[in-house]
Amino acid sequence: MASRLVGNAVIGQSGGPTAVINQSLAGLVASALRAEGIRGVYGARFGVKGILDEDFIDLGRETPETLERVAATPAAGLGSVRKKPTREECQRILEVFRAHEVRYFFYIGGNDSAETAFIIEELAREAAYDLRLFHVPKTIDNDLRVTDHCPGFGSAARFVASALLGDDLDNRSIPGIKIDVVMGRHAGFLTAAAALARRGEDDGPHLLYVPERDFSMKQFLDDVGGVYGRLGRCVVAVSEGIHDAQGGLIVDSKERDSHGNVQLAGSGALGDTLAAAVKERFGPKTRVRADTLGYLQRSFPGFASAVDAREARAVGEQAVAAAIGGERPSGSIAIRRHAGPQYAVDYFVTPLDTVAKVTKQLDPAWINAAGNGVQGGWFDYVRPLAGDLPATGRFAGHAVPKKIHKTAQRRS
Amino acid sequence: MASRLVGNAVIGQSGGPTAVINQSLAGLVASALRAEGIRGVYGARFGVKGILDEDFIDLGRETPETLERVAATPAAGLGSVRKKPTREECQRILEVFRAHEVRYFFYIGGNDSAETAFIIEELAREAAYDLRLFHVPKTIDNDLRVTDHCPGFGSAARFVASALLGDDLDNRSIPGIKIDVVMGRHAGFLTAAAALARRGEDDGPHLLYVPERDFSMKQFLDDVGGVYGRLGRCVVAVSEGIHDAQGGLIVDSKERDSHGNVQLAGSGALGDTLAAAVKERFGPKTRVRADTLGYLQRSFPGFASAVDAREARAVGEQAVAAAIGGERPSGSIAIRRHAGPQYAVDYFVTPLDTVAKVTKQLDPAWINAAGNGVQGGWFDYVRPLAGDLPATGRFAGHAVPKKIHKTAQRRS
Repeated sequence: MASRLVGNAVIGQSGGPTAVINQSLAGLVASALRAEGIRGVYGARFGVKGILDEDFIDLGRETPETLERVAATPAAGLGSVRKKPTREECQRILEVFRAHEVRYFFYIGGNDSAETAFIIEELAREAAYDLRLFHVPKTIDNDLRVTDHCPGFGSAARFVASALLGDDLDNRSIPGIKIDVVMGRHAGFLTAAAALARRGEDDGPHLLYVPERDFSMKQFLDDVGGVYGRLGRCVVAVSEGIHDAQGGLIVDSKERDSHGNVQLAGSGALGDTLAAAVKERFGPKTRVRADTLGYLQRSFPGFASAVDAREARAVGEQAVAAAIGGERPSGSIAIRRHAGPQYAVDYFVTPLDTVAKVTKQLDPAWINAAGNGVQGGWFDYVRPLAGDLPATGRFAGHAVPKKIHKTAQRRS
Repeated sequence: MASRLVGNAVIGQSGGPTAVINQSLAGLVASALRAEGIRGVYGARFGVKGILDEDFIDLGRETPETLERVAATPAAGLGSVRKKPTREECQRILEVFRAHEVRYFFYIGGNDSAETAFIIEELAREAAYDLRLFHVPKTIDNDLRVTDHCPGFGSAARFVASALLGDDLDNRSIPGIKIDVVMGRHAGFLTAAAALARRGEDDGPHLLYVPERDFSMKQFLDDVGGVYGRLGRCVVAVSEGIHDAQGGLIVDSKERDSHGNVQLAGSGALGDTLAAAVKERFGPKTRVRADTLGYLQRSFPGFASAVDAREARAVGEQAVAAAIGGERPSGSIAIRRHAGPQYAVDYFVTPLDTVAKVTKQLDPAWINAAGNGVQGGWFDYVRPLAGDLPATGRFAGHAVPKKIHKTAQRRS
């Protein structure tokens, strides 16, 4: 591995975009353009689809100003794809790489993308085609193994926590029961991040439900009744991927992507189903509302977490460094968090197969016994990633003595 | 009206909150605390409900720092209410005012609140109870008459336009048909504001549907098919209040508030209904998603329009000035926009009954002939209110010549 490999580089983006996926792209492009051994830096439009189609753009011809503007823009600047290439298609990818003298391939994505990278790597090795192949982690779900956390998650966490912060204030203004459905197929990290909105004892979200625990409609309704009885209002954050004890989704749209993943986002069905159940239990006079936070969680502009943006850039830069360094021909960039009260990280390379396919979930110790909230170390884990939330204030609220009804009793 | 009226002031907030409704509150409180004639400044908790219950807090005992923090916080700092008091309750309100020596009443709200204020004014006049009563406009719907625009709208417009900006980028990344349901019961201002997200020719939202025009499912599907056929993607913004030619809502939850308003927000039903129709027309393989932007439109923190925040503060200050000035015993504060390319406004008082009950809609000249977009002066009207949107960038995208398939044709 000591000799320097000379050729072109291809960069692709895959899976659901994030608010900072283009920071990783910018880190890759800027580093690759400077790297010895890398000649052309090509962007594959729409991930592996673009490679199959030889649909490349020359990223070396973009100005540094454009690159910085794109870096600060949510959603995949190159286009993305949810496609698991077949073995035949992976052969075709190698053929394209050969034709374009591509020796460096950087794929920004989640666990499915790591799997694709792993298959391509295998075929390259079988064909004795010398290729450096690095996976650059991104996902708002934060469900990749090995890495402490995933670029993309912090910004989505900041958005979700801020949304819940505002929504809880709104629900204080006009009290009722409010259900917010948060992205997260198998892992509850984003839903758990909503807990950052809580600043005082009676702040929402009061209840959180994550896919790590089986969802029971009965317990949910009892929980909501408890909070509503106590405060006269209740805000709930629930992962889109919650399921019953048999593993069945509460609402199943039946739509699957090519990885076999069910469509969860882009529909209000789960929120509406839960709201209807609450209404049935507590009566039609109860004010019940459901919002599905939807694609804004990953695409809302101008609201990224600063730490997340910085780290997303860094994992791109680290991928080029690892590819050029040549210690390993392939791998996925991971983040290691340092111990201690001051937040600090460094980066390392982990083999592709340690990240591919299988995902990670919330640490069970972070979920409370009742399965309707988070606790302990979760807050230390997530707070530096989401960064500061917008500042808010509340009145001290000194009561003016009543003149007519001297008792403290309120009319309903 | 020349003699100075001496007594306490009550401030209330009513209807759906906004991101800047507390700026108006802060403007009122700070001005009222300085005003000669006004002694105590009381906040009614939950609007008229708080008055009926004598549930007041003493705003004079809050620190200036708290007041500023609350000003920058979305949702009603005093609590709000959707309640139209009966005539008997309005009598009770006067009774409470008398008991608490209240001579100044400021009610922050929309057209329903102006109507409540109008009834209380009438009863005060009949009872020869000297009362200064000013309505301070707020609504994200921007549907109040007389005023050029409503505080609260600009920030919601900024949020919606930013959401559509990000969502369109997301839909470029993974192309499909995306439907975003925007708040707006009878008026399409907020949905029309989504058009600010368009920067280039092929940017979304590509289609807009507002309640000012009858909604035809057939035209909608034809329109979507046209854009989708041309670009391979389509982003639609649609008002929650769209209705067919008979005036019927596309989806009706049957829930009504005490003003007779139908529940529209807090449910994904309309978006899901439209998405299902699109899917039926274009086949199950078509990627179709719907998001209902929901309460975030009015409650998302840290994202207010600067112009909107400033004007919301000003209408509160103006209300106190008008009440103290004593030229009129009552009225609603309105904004007048100056002619000319530089955005500038001043404020004036309009009688309560010119604002009560009836609402305003989009100028018909701003809606295109096909009824699926906005045009002309709309952009000059809305741009200064929403203020700057987050900056985004896109690659120039110089194609790398193909090596295998020399034709420009793409594989599907």
